[in-house]
Amino acid sequence: ARIGIPEAVLCGSKSPAQIDAILDAADDRRLLLTRLDADKLSRLAARHRAALDHDPLSATAFHGAVEAPTLPGPCIVCAGTSDMPVVREAARTLAFSGRCSTVVADVGVAGLWRLMRRIDEIRAFPVVIAVAGMEGALFSVIAGLVAAPVIAVPVSVGYGVATGGTTALHSALASCATGITAVNIDNGFGAACAALRILNRMAASDAPG
Amino acid sequence: ARIGIPEAVLCGSKSPAQIDAILDAADDRRLLLTRLDADKLSRLAARHRAALDHDPLSATAFHGAVEAPTLPGPCIVCAGTSDMPVVREAARTLAFSGRCSTVVADVGVAGLWRLMRRIDEIRAFPVVIAVAGMEGALFSVIAGLVAAPVIAVPVSVGYGVATGGTTALHSALASCATGITAVNIDNGFGAACAALRILNRMAASDAPG
Amino acid sequence: ARIGIPEAVLCGSKSPAQIDAILDAADDRRLLLTRLDADKLSRLAARHRAALDHDPLSATAFHGAVEAPTLPGPCIVCAGTSDMPVVREAARTLAFSGRCSTVVADVGVAGLWRLMRRIDEIRAFPVVIAVAGMEGALFSVIAGLVAAPVIAVPVSVGYGVATGGTTALHSALASCATGITAVNIDNGFGAACAALRILNRMAASDAPG
Amino acid sequence: ARIGIPEAVLCGSKSPAQIDAILDAADDRRLLLTRLDADKLSRLAARHRAALDHDPLSATAFHGAVEAPTLPGPCIVCAGTSDMPVVREAARTLAFSGRCSTVVADVGVAGLWRLMRRIDEIRAFPVVIAVAGMEGALFSVIAGLVAAPVIAVPVSVGYGVATGGTTALHSALASCATGITAVNIDNGFGAACAALRILNRMAASDAPG
Amino acid sequence: ARIGIPEAVLCGSKSPAQIDAILDAADDRRLLLTRLDADKLSRLAARHRAALDHDPLSATAFHGAVEAPTLPGPCIVCAGTSDMPVVREAARTLAFSGRCSTVVADVGVAGLWRLMRRIDEIRAFPVVIAVAGMEGALFSVIAGLVAAPVIAVPVSVGYGVATGGTTALHSALASCATGITAVNIDNGFGAACAALRILNRMAASDAPG
Amino acid sequence: ARIGIPEAVLCGSKSPAQIDAILDAADDRRLLLTRLDADKLSRLAARHRAALDHDPLSATAFHGAVEAPTLPGPCIVCAGTSDMPVVREAARTLAFSGRCSTVVADVGVAGLWRLMRRIDEIRAFPVVIAVAGMEGALFSVIAGLVAAPVIAVPVSVGYGVATGGTTALHSALASCATGITAVNIDNGFGAACAALRILNRMAASDAPG
Amino acid sequence: ARIGIPEAVLCGSKSPAQIDAILDAADDRRLLLTRLDADKLSRLAARHRAALDHDPLSATAFHGAVEAPTLPGPCIVCAGTSDMPVVREAARTLAFSGRCSTVVADVGVAGLWRLMRRIDEIRAFPVVIAVAGMEGALFSVIAGLVAAPVIAVPVSVGYGVATGGTTALHSALASCATGITAVNIDNGFGAACAALRILNRMAASDAPG
Amino acid sequence: ARIGIPEAVLCGSKSPAQIDAILDAADDRRLLLTRLDADKLSRLAARHRAALDHDPLSATAFHGAVEAPTLPGPCIVCAGTSDMPVVREAARTLAFSGRCSTVVADVGVAGLWRLMRRIDEIRAFPVVIAVAGMEGALFSVIAGLVAAPVIAVPVSVGYGVATGGTTALHSALASCATGITAVNIDNGFGAACAALRILNRMAASDAPG
Ligand SMILES: Nc1ncnc2c1ncn2[C@@H]1O[C@H](COP(=O)(O)O)[C@@H](O)[C@H]1O
Ligand SMILES: Nc1ncnc2c1ncn2[C@@H]1O[C@H](COP(=O)(O)O)[C@@H](O)[C@H]1O
Ligand SMILES: Nc1ncnc2c1ncn2[C@@H]1O[C@H](COP(=O)(O)O)[C@@H](O)[C@H]1O
Ligand SMILES: Nc1ncnc2c1ncn2[C@@H]1O[C@H](COP(=O)(O)O)[C@@H](O)[C@H]1O
Ligand SMILES: [Mg+2]
Ligand SMILES: [Mg+2]
Ligand SMILES: [Mg+2]
Ligand SMILES: [Mg+2]
Ligand SMILES: [Mg+2]
Ligand SMILES: [Mg+2]
Ligand SMILES: [Mg+2]
Ligand SMILES: [Mg+2]
Repeated sequence: ARIGIPEAVLCGSKSPAQIDAILDAADDRRLLLTRLDADKLSRLAARHRAALDHDPLSATAFHGAVEAPTLPGPCIVCAGTSDMPVVREAARTLAFSGRCSTVVADVGVAGLWRLMRRIDEIRAFPVVIAVAGMEGALFSVIAGLVAAPVIAVPVSVGYGVATGGTTALHSALASCATGITAVNIDNGFGAACAALRILNRMAASDAPG
Repeated sequence: ARIGIPEAVLCGSKSPAQIDAILDAADDRRLLLTRLDADKLSRLAARHRAALDHDPLSATAFHGAVEAPTLPGPCIVCAGTSDMPVVREAARTLAFSGRCSTVVADVGVAGLWRLMRRIDEIRAFPVVIAVAGMEGALFSVIAGLVAAPVIAVPVSVGYGVATGGTTALHSALASCATGITAVNIDNGFGAACAALRILNRMAASDAPG
Repeated sequence: ARIGIPEAVLCGSKSPAQIDAILDAADDRRLLLTRLDADKLSRLAARHRAALDHDPLSATAFHGAVEAPTLPGPCIVCAGTSDMPVVREAARTLAFSGRCSTVVADVGVAGLWRLMRRIDEIRAFPVVIAVAGMEGALFSVIAGLVAAPVIAVPVSVGYGVATGGTTALHSALASCATGITAVNIDNGFGAACAALRILNRMAASDAPG
Repeated sequence: ARIGIPEAVLCGSKSPAQIDAILDAADDRRLLLTRLDADKLSRLAARHRAALDHDPLSATAFHGAVEAPTLPGPCIVCAGTSDMPVVREAARTLAFSGRCSTVVADVGVAGLWRLMRRIDEIRAFPVVIAVAGMEGALFSVIAGLVAAPVIAVPVSVGYGVATGGTTALHSALASCATGITAVNIDNGFGAACAALRILNRMAASDAPG
Repeated sequence: ARIGIPEAVLCGSKSPAQIDAILDAADDRRLLLTRLDADKLSRLAARHRAALDHDPLSATAFHGAVEAPTLPGPCIVCAGTSDMPVVREAARTLAFSGRCSTVVADVGVAGLWRLMRRIDEIRAFPVVIAVAGMEGALFSVIAGLVAAPVIAVPVSVGYGVATGGTTALHSALASCATGITAVNIDNGFGAACAALRILNRMAASDAPG
Repeated sequence: ARIGIPEAVLCGSKSPAQIDAILDAADDRRLLLTRLDADKLSRLAARHRAALDHDPLSATAFHGAVEAPTLPGPCIVCAGTSDMPVVREAARTLAFSGRCSTVVADVGVAGLWRLMRRIDEIRAFPVVIAVAGMEGALFSVIAGLVAAPVIAVPVSVGYGVATGGTTALHSALASCATGITAVNIDNGFGAACAALRILNRMAASDAPG
Repeated sequence: ARIGIPEAVLCGSKSPAQIDAILDAADDRRLLLTRLDADKLSRLAARHRAALDHDPLSATAFHGAVEAPTLPGPCIVCAGTSDMPVVREAARTLAFSGRCSTVVADVGVAGLWRLMRRIDEIRAFPVVIAVAGMEGALFSVIAGLVAAPVIAVPVSVGYGVATGGTTALHSALASCATGITAVNIDNGFGAACAALRILNRMAASDAPG
Repeated sequence: ARIGIPEAVLCGSKSPAQIDAILDAADDRRLLLTRLDADKLSRLAARHRAALDHDPLSATAFHGAVEAPTLPGPCIVCAGTSDMPVVREAARTLAFSGRCSTVVADVGVAGLWRLMRRIDEIRAFPVVIAVAGMEGALFSVIAGLVAAPVIAVPVSVGYGVATGGTTALHSALASCATGITAVNIDNGFGAACAALRILNRMAASDAPG
């Protein structure tokens, strides 16, 4: 955490034994575990399983005490139910770092009126994280309507040409709306870290501009 | 033209000599020439150059008499100046087939209010052809707002991940708005032919549903 | 259903709990569920499992009453047994919307005589949905023989270079037969919605051309 | 030519100076030059330019005496004008090896009746070379109608998803018609060599089956 | 079998119920089943399971009587144990069609001396089927040493850049050895059919060259 | 500029005539022109050519008065000479918007000591834009050393697997250093706009965290 | 082992029965088995299971006596826990060949100070094997600091654009640090063999330079 | 040159003005310029043009005095004329560093006997650089016959699936011959630097194994 970002362990390609060893070594250092699904959790040592605060939807876990967040944080916007695991990975990373977040879901562009009803609410936040799979048109529409920094998280939801999330990623990068930035596909953790970099700087500065 | 579609010659990979031979053989059969740019036109035999009705922006030419179109046709919607060659290829194909078309340009989703101002006008047409490059978010927004058939034409405008038009194509196919269909990248001709198939059927039938 | 397209829930990346919640919220609104396979169905709440009209081959389910369709609809053409799940997804979407459909199967181009025997029957329909995997040559052959709108659905059947359906998709888009449009790979639902857009317009208009 | 295949020089990535050196070293050995376009030909040493029998359409040249072919050879089938350079590269390679060839052009599947009119003629040949760009549906249709060996040559004609010829190549490989083999994109030379391997074996054997 | 190729059923994407229905309809027509692994076989109706002659390594089955082959056929060359399922798919397809085949295994190019010891044996066959995964260098070495038709079958063995067999496929197509043709990845069946087309023609003709 | 981002015209795929028309319509509205190279500039109408403040290295031009920037802005870090056009596109976009920027060049990771000498200077800025081609290792090294927001701009410099900039883009997205965000390849304009979104918010807020 | 490289069996695509047959035929020839995971090991014949020296993390096994290595060997550098299976595949291959190796783990570039603390230790080795997944920035940083041969092994760890290891591979190949060479993704075995080629030559020669 | 590798300037994406500036700053430091073709050379300042020792085939230039090399170096093996620019880029880099090199050309695997005639000569060298385009089968054949380190340089020669050199690159990486390492496509410079790392180490050590 030398640069103010949470210390995290990406569990996806680690064995339960490797994760147990990391937790043993961590002692009472706080750790955020990502990509730790319920099945892998159940194969950890009992003492770790009991001690972790695990959220199955996002497959994240907190190691060490985490208090309820109090600092202001981003708005997280997404289209629907399928994006929620990634939305929550971002929200949990922010919570681990003491930041609140507000989720505005179910505002896909196929039903534009739903987004328009909530756009003033979204505009009030210092940072917006936009989460979308399929063709990711949400990124362009949001960034055209909001002046804050917009961090796009493409999601690997969908089939055919949407498989794996590349279409949504490319839509974020090639958007005709300007000033969108993107993180890797499904990387809710990374989007939250990017938001933290911005929010930490805002907090540290007396208005640099 | 056995199935009611204009007879067309794709000139892109044909030499001037080959095109001259095709025109000689055509005699007084009407022909639509596509992908015939000004440079290649200038290398055709003088008699053909003089006889063709050539449009440089769309790189199309009419061989044989073409009267002003009178039958109703689609609305062609696009985001901006860079999409105009493809828009015109569609419009010229329709005109060659006797169909009018109406162009609604400069309605990219980064400035959503421009599109919203004209949406009722667009809704009045029996078919919509949507032309977009970059990330192609226009397709989803239009299809969410309009009940008519929407034919998406991805455009090879853009750089980086947008190069070649694949991102726009995939956005059309993976759209969260339902019932969009797509043609090949830059294929204004094909979109017009697809619209003709629909319009011809509508004309032929007494309301099949 | 603001634009006349059925309200649908794509269940592929939703958990049983998420689907249960959607069905609870739907109350007596009619819903079409797609990509709901038998296994996931069995993990829904008993009250939902009992109430849904589920079709295992297409992995679709109707929520709410659906009467036998009576309005005329498209012809759905395909090459063989492996394409049937996608064919049925289209047919079920149409039935949910009150439209009949006629399936002409087993007419792959490797045995051209089988297709030729039925071509006049196919020509009688206002719209044709063509479903094909492997190399998708069926799209070009059909579109060369039929004047109606042809909507191509590439199927992810096959191995090697056919894996995932991209070859069939590209064949539809690059076809030398003109005026074909395509939807996403395996998207029988989308093809049906595109057909509905056309058929609804035909019904609404008094012959626009 | 140790295995009965013509000795060939692929000139595409060779400088005029390098080609001159190869021709000097060749002395009176017969050589087939491929991918030698008119521009590069004009930059060869005058003595070579004069001695070569060059064909601009196929960009091939014969070095050394080549008599009119007399041995029977394949039928070369293609869809249209744009495929002719590749068709001729095959025909020239066969002629250089003493084999006749018969070209059946303008039989694209979008106009199936044109192919059907000539199918019995095609069936009479011991080998068929099929040349097609765009979506390459021709390969499947031919192979479903003809019992002879079918060698597919995909052509890099087309734009959008057809760019570079990959779609046509994949159509040949994924064809639902069985027993098609393919060579590299635009490789008329290779298709002719594959045909020569077959024809030479047929000539050598007294009916091996 | 109108063109002399065995009637085959690709079982990969068919359900056991669909395969049962096909076998019922086949009555006493002979059928070759491919991609029918032991697991799917075990889920067929008992009467079919008992009647089929199944080979687990190649996942093929014969429906109907198949006598021991007596007609001469190709040499099938491969590098090692991992290629054997594809090798056997080819051999079984040939046997179903009455053709013998000879397998020369374990001759990968990393140990060139093993191939050189058997090259004269290989040269005696009218057709060579070469089966190779990884980088597919075997195709080029064989085709440089043998004058007969060489049909390359790329295999999806390997990891990293070899995953899925594309590297081997491209090696066959881009080979500096001339006149190689290729079939789809893992398509032992297709290679055998291509060999049958050649062998049938050789048998039918009195030396066409 | 409704959301505080400069109004820009992407000239890459526009003809000189189209750009002239846009400038005529702009009247005295300030405009930033991007991808306007010296050659295309020279083909504009003389009155426009004279009035534009053009920078050949970045291919940008200012239309309308632009005063020297005074507001604080980002540090732009890059590896070397080949990245300078993109670096300058970012710097010019910032200047057009009234923001200063500081360029730290020639700090590629192959000579790590050069970067380390300047790292404290870089750490003082509120935002860092990192510009890199080839393998883009610079992004990870910077983001590991700096706490501020890091916006990565991949550059299409390089050959072989680096061609087109995809390797650098993917390195930014897959970085093991957390919280990096990326814009499209070569998109210095977009990176500057993303920085403006952050800086504008910082200026507007009294420290939101 | 004709060229001094260990004889190895790649078990990934071999059945237990095939591996048993290879071990039977090996008699008392020493063999290195790779990609033999615990599950497949448990399905080998009991006599083989008992005789093999198996390492589960690397999925390697020694057949035949292997003494503790004594000859000097490479340094193997990696970023973290997820890379350890590949690191160990390299170390085991070296041990099988009589070579020691030293692992320097947990030196990812996101925490540069960890690498800098150990760089002098690394510089003492005659060869360095660098193992990294994600974006592979480690390769460039190491190669900029060390004069010895650097062999990069990309690892298929990661998700989104890192999936499958292509990003790490391309980073190694496109590195701005010069003289890096790469092996296939996850190919710890190949990297060890490349190191053996170098070390064997060094041992054989009296300083060739 | 802190790690014993020549200081090089990659001129491909630099303007003549930028190169002039680099040469002015270099003073009498020795520099190797790569990707400097004859056309760009002609646009340098006259004083630089005159001072550089330029080789047009490889597009390299020496800035500063370079004596004839005397230290032993690698064997560079390639298939033919088209690979010579890359071969020479490697040879020039070695010469600039004081190392001799020996070129063995025209040994493509399609004519295996040519390679076998020279194999003992090749085996005498401490390092082998293998340069090949098309399908790159040369890498596997060489590495199977030679015990020294083999550095593969894929070349972007060829068309169709060989376009850009990816097929040759993948062949090197997926080779069934063990211990091959690869550099980027067309990277003769990088291969020479990798060889220098090995040779320098050999020279420095008294036989480390
Ligand atoms: N979900 C995630 N996505 C991307 N990076 C992550 C994620 N979780 C942790 N990380 C980062 O990945 C690295 C962890 O690598 P490791 O040491 O293998 O656990 C650290 O730099 C983490 O900050
Ligand atoms: N711009 C175009 N895009 C796609 N297909 C076209 C285009 N112009 C003509 N075609 C079709 O391409 C075929 C013409 O092929 P050809 O005989 O080579 O001119 C015909 O089927 C035309 O209908
Ligand atoms: N058009 C072509 N396509 C593919 N291979 C060719 C072609 N022309 C010649 N070749 C082969 O390419 C190799 C010639 O390479 P080179 O020695 O570089 O001329 C020989 O094996 C030729 O048989
Ligand atoms: N260099 C650039 N890269 C990406 N987007 C740009 C660039 N320059 C301008 N734009 C944006 O592209 C759109 C301009 O589109 P157009 O109306 O076609 O000029 C606007 O949204 C601009 O803000
Ligand atoms: Mg979405
Ligand atoms: Mg657009
Ligand atoms: Mg099919
Ligand atoms: Mg064609
Ligand atoms: Mg193999
Ligand atoms: Mg760089
Ligand atoms: Mg790593
Ligand atoms: Mg070569």
